[in-house]
Amino acid sequence: MNKERFDKGLEIRRSVLGAEYVDKSIQNADDFNMPMQELVTEYCWGEVWGRPGLPKKTRSMLNLAMITALNRPHELKLHVRGALNNGLTKEEIQEVFLQTAIYCGVPAAIDSFRSAKEVFEEMDQK
Amino acid sequence: MNKERFDKGLEIRRSVLGAEYVDKSIQNADDFNMPMQELVTEYCWGEVWGRPGLPKKTRSMLNLAMITALNRPHELKLHVRGALNNGLTKEEIQEVFLQTAIYCGVPAAIDSFRSAKEVFEEMDQK
Amino acid sequence: MNKERFDKGLEIRRSVLGAEYVDKSIQNADDFNMPMQELVTEYCWGEVWGRPGLPKKTRSMLNLAMITALNRPHELKLHVRGALNNGLTKEEIQEVFLQTAIYCGVPAAIDSFRSAKEVFEEMDQK
Amino acid sequence: MNKERFDKGLEIRRSVLGAEYVDKSIQNADDFNMPMQELVTEYCWGEVWGRPGLPKKTRSMLNLAMITALNRPHELKLHVRGALNNGLTKEEIQEVFLQTAIYCGVPAAIDSFRSAKEVFEEMDQK
Amino acid sequence: MNKERFDKGLEIRRSVLGAEYVDKSIQNADDFNMPMQELVTEYCWGEVWGRPGLPKKTRSMLNLAMITALNRPHELKLHVRGALNNGLTKEEIQEVFLQTAIYCGVPAAIDSFRSAKEVFEEMDQK
Amino acid sequence: MNKERFDKGLEIRRSVLGAEYVDKSIQNADDFNMPMQELVTEYCWGEVWGRPGLPKKTRSMLNLAMITALNRPHELKLHVRGALNNGLTKEEIQEVFLQTAIYCGVPAAIDSFRSAKEVFEEMDQK
Repeated sequence: MNKERFDKGLEIRRSVLGAEYVDKSIQNADDFNMPMQELVTEYCWGEVWGRPGLPKKTRSMLNLAMITALNRPHELKLHVRGALNNGLTKEEIQEVFLQTAIYCGVPAAIDSFRSAKEVFEEMDQK
Repeated sequence: MNKERFDKGLEIRRSVLGAEYVDKSIQNADDFNMPMQELVTEYCWGEVWGRPGLPKKTRSMLNLAMITALNRPHELKLHVRGALNNGLTKEEIQEVFLQTAIYCGVPAAIDSFRSAKEVFEEMDQK
Repeated sequence: MNKERFDKGLEIRRSVLGAEYVDKSIQNADDFNMPMQELVTEYCWGEVWGRPGLPKKTRSMLNLAMITALNRPHELKLHVRGALNNGLTKEEIQEVFLQTAIYCGVPAAIDSFRSAKEVFEEMDQK
Repeated sequence: MNKERFDKGLEIRRSVLGAEYVDKSIQNADDFNMPMQELVTEYCWGEVWGRPGLPKKTRSMLNLAMITALNRPHELKLHVRGALNNGLTKEEIQEVFLQTAIYCGVPAAIDSFRSAKEVFEEMDQK
Repeated sequence: MNKERFDKGLEIRRSVLGAEYVDKSIQNADDFNMPMQELVTEYCWGEVWGRPGLPKKTRSMLNLAMITALNRPHELKLHVRGALNNGLTKEEIQEVFLQTAIYCGVPAAIDSFRSAKEVFEEMDQK
Repeated sequence: MNKERFDKGLEIRRSVLGAEYVDKSIQNADDFNMPMQELVTEYCWGEVWGRPGLPKKTRSMLNLAMITALNRPHELKLHVRGALNNGLTKEEIQEVFLQTAIYCGVPAAIDSFRSAKEVFEEMDQK
């Protein structure tokens, strides 16, 4: 593990996905999934999200589109929260998902609209 | 077919993918694929690309990410050209594909880097 | 939105997926997902399902096969109900899913058999 | 290998994909891919295509839809030929692919229209 | 159905996935899903798992990697149990999933780590 | 970039995919794809292939299975060569692909058998 890049990644990951969620993920990690936590924090967040070439808001939009295509609802919900943290409006999230309807197909878009709505409802309940 | 939306879609499609390419696609269409040309022009370009909610440059970035995930190199190459037409720099295309390496996996990103390079070389030869 | 095509789509969608389900989807739609409801109703149902070129029963079979390949269990369950509404027998649904085992792989087919069984059990309980 | 089911599968496979193509595939098989030829002939063609529950024409339509979703152009082209052999018209193939545009996304449908057109052109040249 | 191959497949399937689970699957099968149970037992387990060319432990590793790529969590959890039955250690399962992070993308690997952890917790509770 | 891990990754990558191929990839890289070359060498090869938890031969088998599922023929061909370099026999490659037929579906396996055969023929011609 590269400590410097891990720390940089951890800071970005906490700012996007929420400090509470990220800290819990790392505290709950055991021998089995700790190497995955480290790999993700260092490469995904430190190496790629840490690049200055695109604003975080744009990276969030790309993720909503890709993760819809990849059909991973658990990660999608995390990144809907991340998108809001990075300044996307609900209207922009809506636009991204309407565009996925065309390219990924209608069932993919419907699933993402439903996942996002669940996130909005969970946030309203707090 | 809704003539008004088809015409709106045709205009956007020509501005993004290039008038020459689009006109040839429609002129070469026969009974078999003309309904697909119409559906794409109206639904994809008139209905979704025509929405004001996101700038075309952003829509191009979303497409590069999604089409990488969807593994459709022929469409990807068209949309690399479209992305350049919509004002993306090569550096921004690079950033999008680096992000796909993390989320869609390394083979997906390698394929998209190679496809984009082919487009750049085709354009340099003109 | 093209009102005529939307209304045509709404009628077909209600006849296939069930009036109660569709009306609830539209009534529960808010600013966030209403544009998706409109897009789906108009293009998916008005434009494509409304084409006379294939019987609805055939379109239902195609959907069961495609949605199995696409791995979208929520939509699959809706379309199992739609398939029964369109006159497919359980034996025909079985045949479609056995064929998906060969082309989409065994895990895809097992998941679709399980989803369909859940639908049958929900229907028996009413 | 179950000889009886292999022979049944071989007969069906030859009738759908063309005797010339199938015989060449088996004659050209070597130690490396012969077990795959046997598995496909027996399991795919003898076991599933040989079931009486759906007409071959319907099975062809399902395959065009599924193989579009699965993104396998080489197999798709074989099954476009198979579909014509099983009595599908070009208009019905068109309908299947228009429906894939909605469910699998526009890039998937565009690729399948292009593959089918290549098959038609190859057949016209003979 | 080929009785001999079915019986061979049943024995292997029971030894990998657990006798209790497999017997329940077959006993609970009805007219709708029995042909699928037979197809899976005969081809998947009798024909392919029954081949001597690879040790069962290796086949389990291949399945964990493939099923992660295919995004089928229900089957993945079964095959995590199967992998333990076939002698994989948790450390080896961890290695397989870390490798999927690179090739299938981070969301795929995260989902598989989570599914595996659920299996481990279910087993600890017994 | 972490120089130490890059160098470790480069060594492993050269030993698996062939020094000539890897050196050419890096020498031909330009500003556009060099960051991808670096990410792959460090993250994929230095970080994951460099882990001692699985033998390289096993990692090659996992890759053949995963890349078949992911439908990336260009990468698959590279990893067929890598698999031979890591000591897999043709018979073992055959077994991996027969197993993909069951889990990923027949079209996926057929494509991988064909890609592998192309690699074998290219190697025989040298």
